[in-house]
Amino acid sequence: MTVGILGGTGDIGEGLALRLGHDTDRRVIVGSRSADRASERAETYRSQLDKRGRSATIEGLSNAEAAAAASIVVAAVPPYYLRETIDSVAAGLDEETVLVTPAVGMSGDEAGMHYDRPGAGSVTELAASTAPDATPVVGAAHTLPAGRLADLDADLGIDTVLVGPEPAKSRVRDLFEGIDGLRTVDAGPLANAAEIEAVTPLLINVAEYTDDLEALGVRFR
Amino acid sequence: MTVGILGGTGDIGEGLALRLGHDTDRRVIVGSRSADRASERAETYRSQLDKRGRSATIEGLSNAEAAAAASIVVAAVPPYYLRETIDSVAAGLDEETVLVTPAVGMSGDEAGMHYDRPGAGSVTELAASTAPDATPVVGAAHTLPAGRLADLDADLGIDTVLVGPEPAKSRVRDLFEGIDGLRTVDAGPLANAAEIEAVTPLLINVAEYTDDLEALGVRFR
Repeated sequence: MTVGILGGTGDIGEGLALRLGHDTDRRVIVGSRSADRASERAETYRSQLDKRGRSATIEGLSNAEAAAAASIVVAAVPPYYLRETIDSVAAGLDEETVLVTPAVGMSGDEAGMHYDRPGAGSVTELAASTAPDATPVVGAAHTLPAGRLADLDADLGIDTVLVGPEPAKSRVRDLFEGIDGLRTVDAGPLANAAEIEAVTPLLINVAEYTDDLEALGVRFR
Repeated sequence: MTVGILGGTGDIGEGLALRLGHDTDRRVIVGSRSADRASERAETYRSQLDKRGRSATIEGLSNAEAAAAASIVVAAVPPYYLRETIDSVAAGLDEETVLVTPAVGMSGDEAGMHYDRPGAGSVTELAASTAPDATPVVGAAHTLPAGRLADLDADLGIDTVLVGPEPAKSRVRDLFEGIDGLRTVDAGPLANAAEIEAVTPLLINVAEYTDDLEALGVRFR
């Protein structure tokens, strides 16, 4: 099963590509607005994994080509590019494709980071309203620390919360459970996404104000 | 140092009274609108701890008397009673008293529980705006599972997030760090409270939709 990572040259995209390439046998396609840039980054990721003795199938394509080739498409782009990105790949999304969105809207002030809840209820629901009607959308990976994902020497031991419809959610669960040290938990339908998205600014605030904690994730227990 | 727990006959109040009585040497005052009811519950808590070989100082008083006698006052009441409760004990709150608020506003629909963010920004900030100006307010214990706190056989291994001004926050940190298996983390000033409060409905949703997870707390890692 092929995973396409739109914005796969960014921080969270890099982390997911490396972990999936390292821990699973999935074919990974790094997507970017520029196919050349995507190819360069895919080459970089492959060579990082080669040095660890892991021969992974990672290639780079334009976002639209990545979406068309993949059965799970992760929109690893900033929230302000999310609708534009989904629109640009819509022709490659069908009822066999699951669109995964980790995007969160937030802004900072002198106190810290704050969740900006969009009118759609959540960024996850905004993605769902933008995607083609036939394409199931699953929220995931909102709370994963990008830098720690990309550091393959770092233990995870954290959870990612999934929201969305079945059976798409189970396919996304299988994908993320393939990453060592990552556990998935289920928070129900898309309507419950806002409470997950609000955790991302909280993690940043806790890391900012608490000594000896950084690049945080969360484990439910 | 004396801890007063307003609404100490409720679920979270019971859990805190039992844990503080069991794990620390604090004097604990259970507050309730009815002093008689508070005394009865304090007696019940004491006898539970006696059976475990722990002789704790737990007594019951009216909320107003509990607030006046304590240097840390936990308003363990539902959010819709919070302002009324703070008003009713205001005469006993001064600049030497820290008011701790764990309250969260939420409501449910067929999908799950949702965070109801009040106009004040958060319930924690609502408590701060209701308390006497001289009394520092600290948000804490929003994400603690009441039933698991009250079950002294249950391991915790979870965090509670603190927000609010120093040095009041350090006094609350010392209090909660006295409970075995509970760690405090710091999310900064009161303005960062909403992102913590949103975790409470998330914990309920994850427990509802995920097999084998219940009475959840959270650990940052």
